[in-house]
Amino acid sequence: MAQSTLKTKPLSNVAITGGTHGNELVGIRLVRHWKSNTSHVTRQSFKTHLALNNIPAIEKCVRYIDNDLNRCFSNKEVVATGNGYEVKIAHEIKEWIATNNIDFHVDLHNTTANTGALLILTPTAAQSMLNLQILAKLRCSFNFPIRVLSFAGKSLGGGILEIAGCGFGFENGPVPHGTLKADLFKQTSNVTCKVLDIIEEFNQGVQLDEQELEVYEFERVMFFPKDGNGNVTAMIHGHLEGKDWVPVQKGDPLFMTFSGETILHEGDEEIIPTFINEASYMEKDVAFIIVHNTTVKLQPVQKC
Amino acid sequence: MAQSTLKTKPLSNVAITGGTHGNELVGIRLVRHWKSNTSHVTRQSFKTHLALNNIPAIEKCVRYIDNDLNRCFSNKEVVATGNGYEVKIAHEIKEWIATNNIDFHVDLHNTTANTGALLILTPTAAQSMLNLQILAKLRCSFNFPIRVLSFAGKSLGGGILEIAGCGFGFENGPVPHGTLKADLFKQTSNVTCKVLDIIEEFNQGVQLDEQELEVYEFERVMFFPKDGNGNVTAMIHGHLEGKDWVPVQKGDPLFMTFSGETILHEGDEEIIPTFINEASYMEKDVAFIIVHNTTVKLQPVQKC
Repeated sequence: MAQSTLKTKPLSNVAITGGTHGNELVGIRLVRHWKSNTSHVTRQSFKTHLALNNIPAIEKCVRYIDNDLNRCFSNKEVVATGNGYEVKIAHEIKEWIATNNIDFHVDLHNTTANTGALLILTPTAAQSMLNLQILAKLRCSFNFPIRVLSFAGKSLGGGILEIAGCGFGFENGPVPHGTLKADLFKQTSNVTCKVLDIIEEFNQGVQLDEQELEVYEFERVMFFPKDGNGNVTAMIHGHLEGKDWVPVQKGDPLFMTFSGETILHEGDEEIIPTFINEASYMEKDVAFIIVHNTTVKLQPVQKC
Repeated sequence: MAQSTLKTKPLSNVAITGGTHGNELVGIRLVRHWKSNTSHVTRQSFKTHLALNNIPAIEKCVRYIDNDLNRCFSNKEVVATGNGYEVKIAHEIKEWIATNNIDFHVDLHNTTANTGALLILTPTAAQSMLNLQILAKLRCSFNFPIRVLSFAGKSLGGGILEIAGCGFGFENGPVPHGTLKADLFKQTSNVTCKVLDIIEEFNQGVQLDEQELEVYEFERVMFFPKDGNGNVTAMIHGHLEGKDWVPVQKGDPLFMTFSGETILHEGDEEIIPTFINEASYMEKDVAFIIVHNTTVKLQPVQKC
């Protein structure tokens, strides 16, 4: 049976931000480029707002100064406390989003892992049917794979996208932090501009039809093996390196110890790893995250 | 005509250090591993000394705290001045090397560039015939390419290896800073252990025969293109990405501007680029370095 069409308000204020993590250069350079070339991101039916989120971290080319800014938010609130620099700017960013009535937020990231182009949903953003429809249309607009990763069920916690409540983190990799890769730069630019086109069409009255969206859901993190003193004893096995999204079966290599021994996946269940060898996970001894895939049926959406 | 044999004292104290740059994890984890497993680096005829050079930078997983430690030295002296943290530890490292009579120093690095395994010579180290002979023998010991890059003529300046005066920086890439790659880890381990074997053989009386050594010599740095305000306007072109050591001819792509235009190599002369897209060069707007290759005839060396 066909689903009824959901009527939703057009979007009025779209934010495109970079530099939530100061060493992820693709988004930083893109936002700077668009600030000097606004025609690329200007559309008739809504206003586009450009911002760099953590200037001191950008200047130092580090992920953060005191705390991970992308772990400071939850459910439209700043939840991090203390005197850290990022707690201060988290409040300013919340204020900026409220003042500008941002109703769709694209936050640009990149990763050292071989994730490819990836749309990340924080818990609130995963509940918006319009948001899911925009992502589904975006996925179909390119001939390279674009995956969707949802933190709706369980969250690493605190994403900046929680404030606007609608939108996504655009992640792309592999690229070392502190560097640029021309192909990923171009891809990130094309995907972001296409989102703006899709929103423009929706605002102009084009209906987003009933369809299905394949979504990876975050399940848990996998830590590196440790010895009795809590010291990490191994690294990602060469066989697993770059194999994000490829199911791992019992007996497949996961880690290589610093002495050269291979550690296998010993669980009976298949696991799907991603963010393998993401640099920022190292400080938490996280080797990769484990996801599972599911398909979500999307209700048609039209502007009211 | 055969060259006369140079008689050189055996080596007594070999230093293997990591963490000169705190975000280059391969050397850091290897040195830690060997500190707990000293048998891998212990040889009969000399003492092996293990050290991590910049602990606070390692703890923060950043290249340096105040200054690049590997630009603080010259000609057996600490030349950097000021109150920066690295200036302080540069003096301590110089003292440590002197106190332990280090006569051969291997400093472990890694890079985001696709350099492969690379032996780096600072000006003083490039003058030691024993050193060049050890490098030549090392190159022949593996079935993967190991290149030699000399800063003898012109220097980026200040390498830590200037103090011991003999030895080399072992560079390996590509690997994002703040991460490990199992294959590069193993390669770095094998090459370092092989150096110790070669020194052991030399100390036991094995002559290092007359031979030739292919050396790349540093020529100059290539900056990213900039606009009239001094802002970088481009990134490494996808065609050049990962093509370290591959000669670039007139008309080959070098850069892609943030607007998507290709910038070609317009010079008539062929250039050989390396350290393409090394993350730490970004703060200086350096895109890559340009080298040329030459062949050095090596005199036979035997211990006296």
